[in-house]
Amino acid sequence: MPESRAEKGMATLRRLFGSSVGGTPLPPAFAQMTVEHLFGEVWQRPGLALEERSLVTCAVLVALGREAEQKIHFRGARNLGISREKLDELLLHIAHYAGWPVAVSALRVLDEVWRTMDGEAK
Amino acid sequence: MPESRAEKGMATLRRLFGSSVGGTPLPPAFAQMTVEHLFGEVWQRPGLALEERSLVTCAVLVALGREAEQKIHFRGARNLGISREKLDELLLHIAHYAGWPVAVSALRVLDEVWRTMDGEAK
Amino acid sequence: MPESRAEKGMATLRRLFGSSVGGTPLPPAFAQMTVEHLFGEVWQRPGLALEERSLVTCAVLVALGREAEQKIHFRGARNLGISREKLDELLLHIAHYAGWPVAVSALRVLDEVWRTMDGEAK
Amino acid sequence: MPESRAEKGMATLRRLFGSSVGGTPLPPAFAQMTVEHLFGEVWQRPGLALEERSLVTCAVLVALGREAEQKIHFRGARNLGISREKLDELLLHIAHYAGWPVAVSALRVLDEVWRTMDGEAK
Amino acid sequence: MPESRAEKGMATLRRLFGSSVGGTPLPPAFAQMTVEHLFGEVWQRPGLALEERSLVTCAVLVALGREAEQKIHFRGARNLGISREKLDELLLHIAHYAGWPVAVSALRVLDEVWRTMDGEAK
Amino acid sequence: MPESRAEKGMATLRRLFGSSVGGTPLPPAFAQMTVEHLFGEVWQRPGLALEERSLVTCAVLVALGREAEQKIHFRGARNLGISREKLDELLLHIAHYAGWPVAVSALRVLDEVWRTMDGEAK
Repeated sequence: MPESRAEKGMATLRRLFGSSVGGTPLPPAFAQMTVEHLFGEVWQRPGLALEERSLVTCAVLVALGREAEQKIHFRGARNLGISREKLDELLLHIAHYAGWPVAVSALRVLDEVWRTMDGEAK
Repeated sequence: MPESRAEKGMATLRRLFGSSVGGTPLPPAFAQMTVEHLFGEVWQRPGLALEERSLVTCAVLVALGREAEQKIHFRGARNLGISREKLDELLLHIAHYAGWPVAVSALRVLDEVWRTMDGEAK
Repeated sequence: MPESRAEKGMATLRRLFGSSVGGTPLPPAFAQMTVEHLFGEVWQRPGLALEERSLVTCAVLVALGREAEQKIHFRGARNLGISREKLDELLLHIAHYAGWPVAVSALRVLDEVWRTMDGEAK
Repeated sequence: MPESRAEKGMATLRRLFGSSVGGTPLPPAFAQMTVEHLFGEVWQRPGLALEERSLVTCAVLVALGREAEQKIHFRGARNLGISREKLDELLLHIAHYAGWPVAVSALRVLDEVWRTMDGEAK
Repeated sequence: MPESRAEKGMATLRRLFGSSVGGTPLPPAFAQMTVEHLFGEVWQRPGLALEERSLVTCAVLVALGREAEQKIHFRGARNLGISREKLDELLLHIAHYAGWPVAVSALRVLDEVWRTMDGEAK
Repeated sequence: MPESRAEKGMATLRRLFGSSVGGTPLPPAFAQMTVEHLFGEVWQRPGLALEERSLVTCAVLVALGREAEQKIHFRGARNLGISREKLDELLLHIAHYAGWPVAVSALRVLDEVWRTMDGEAK
């Protein structure tokens, strides 16, 4: 029996963000579009593996300096098994394509996410 | 006998861009830093595979709307064996994180690169 | 009998862009998402009138310097009856919030769109 | 008797921001240019209604991710009678033209502004 | 007898751009604001020397990737006596703060401006 | 006896940031590249004086809205003897090339840096 887009979306969100799904409470229409369209359809598509989507999303968020969203997707990356070393390397690489400042600011966010998740793991 | 940074850089550039290495002629100091530091050191580092660096570079260039550089790195991606389908999917994904317009503009560049390289392949 | 999202999307596209619907040919999945989700769902929602969506879209494209898409949406704005004077004023206003350069570049695009459409009108 | 640019600017500022006019104390020349040129001249011009200028300003600030200024102009929008529903819809629309992350971050700011102003209204 | 803002603005424009003053024809209100406010007031203020304003303007246009305006202000920089070597160095520096791609694209513009002006000098 | 790149980099960092060198702790490879390549090589190059590099770096950070890095480089500018008046003027100028919002936000950072350093000077 095929899952609905909403079910697929919630499954992707749980896979990426675990029990911390939630974050900013969105207005109903925006929340629905985020779950059904973005996580239930876009993130479910073939062509890019889930780990690739996560890495690429982190890359875009770093390059654009979107720090609040980095916090969420660095967590998602770690939950998918992407290593701290790989993310450090990602930031060093992006420093050369979007400038040192976005990379240094992202490192601060990454450090904070890692420390928080280390604390949760205990 | 260890290769110099310049040799490593030229090897990476040939691997990515083949005979079309060159593009904009840079002033000497900038050219040297690009070959030795960017392609001879950063792109050579462990932690991210060459294909991952290519995909992530394309992602950043799309998100930031850097169309001239997209032309070069989409070519690099194809030379590394990254499929058109994967790049199409990359753009669809990024449309949601950096907006439709950068993705649509990148598609135009991608189409042009693919057609040019199809022509070269004959 | 309710229209499908695809029908609604095509109607919005025709309303905005008339016979010039098309532009960049997108890969099938991206084209479908653009017609059904973006123009068939987002642009159809209540809360913002069509003219307001058009004006706001132009504003965002100007502020971000997305000139290829400005070409399309300035055309859309004119087709909805938004005057040249209003768009000139929009650019002057945005010059102060995103800088003179994006406004001046957008003026060049706006001029070109207007001249093209003046020609078509004959 | 014609008002001076400074008087017009202060009137626009009071209309938009009420008693909370002020915000960051600017150096004298910058403060004067902001009051006289930006609010006393640009915002006073015909061609765009005050509500349209407010909506368009909010759109630009969201697309560019300027959160500190969003705080001020979301307040201005509410003071002009623009509804929360309209601003929610604005963000959902812009998510598709500048990416989900700027829209989600703007929603956080919007929520905070609304809660603060609800508190003040009591 | 004090000069008007319009006279000062035209003088600054001639100083920077010589006989090529003009570029995009702006709508009247925008043209007037550009001459009187931007070049007749802002560029005339003490605190930053004209050469510093030119260098800083080039830096901002490079970092933001505003290539059409770079064409104008690189010309202005050369007319003020800023050397090609200094501008090359500027781009190399900015490559590290805003990414390689904006610097490489700006180099292309800079090359073109220099070649054009070399031709005019004959 | 020639200094190493690392020694030159540390000297530049001390010159700019004094005892507050440090900031975000970077991963080892990133820290090394920052000291040796960015501050030991790029910032050491002829063609732009140290004060010009500082001013231009501040300009880029303001235009791009990189507030965390502004905090560091406004401090560096003051340590090099660049006056508050010059930096205020820089922001007013950039307001016209990158928009009012980045300038106003940078003023907040500049105020804070100045107050902190005034306190340290006692």
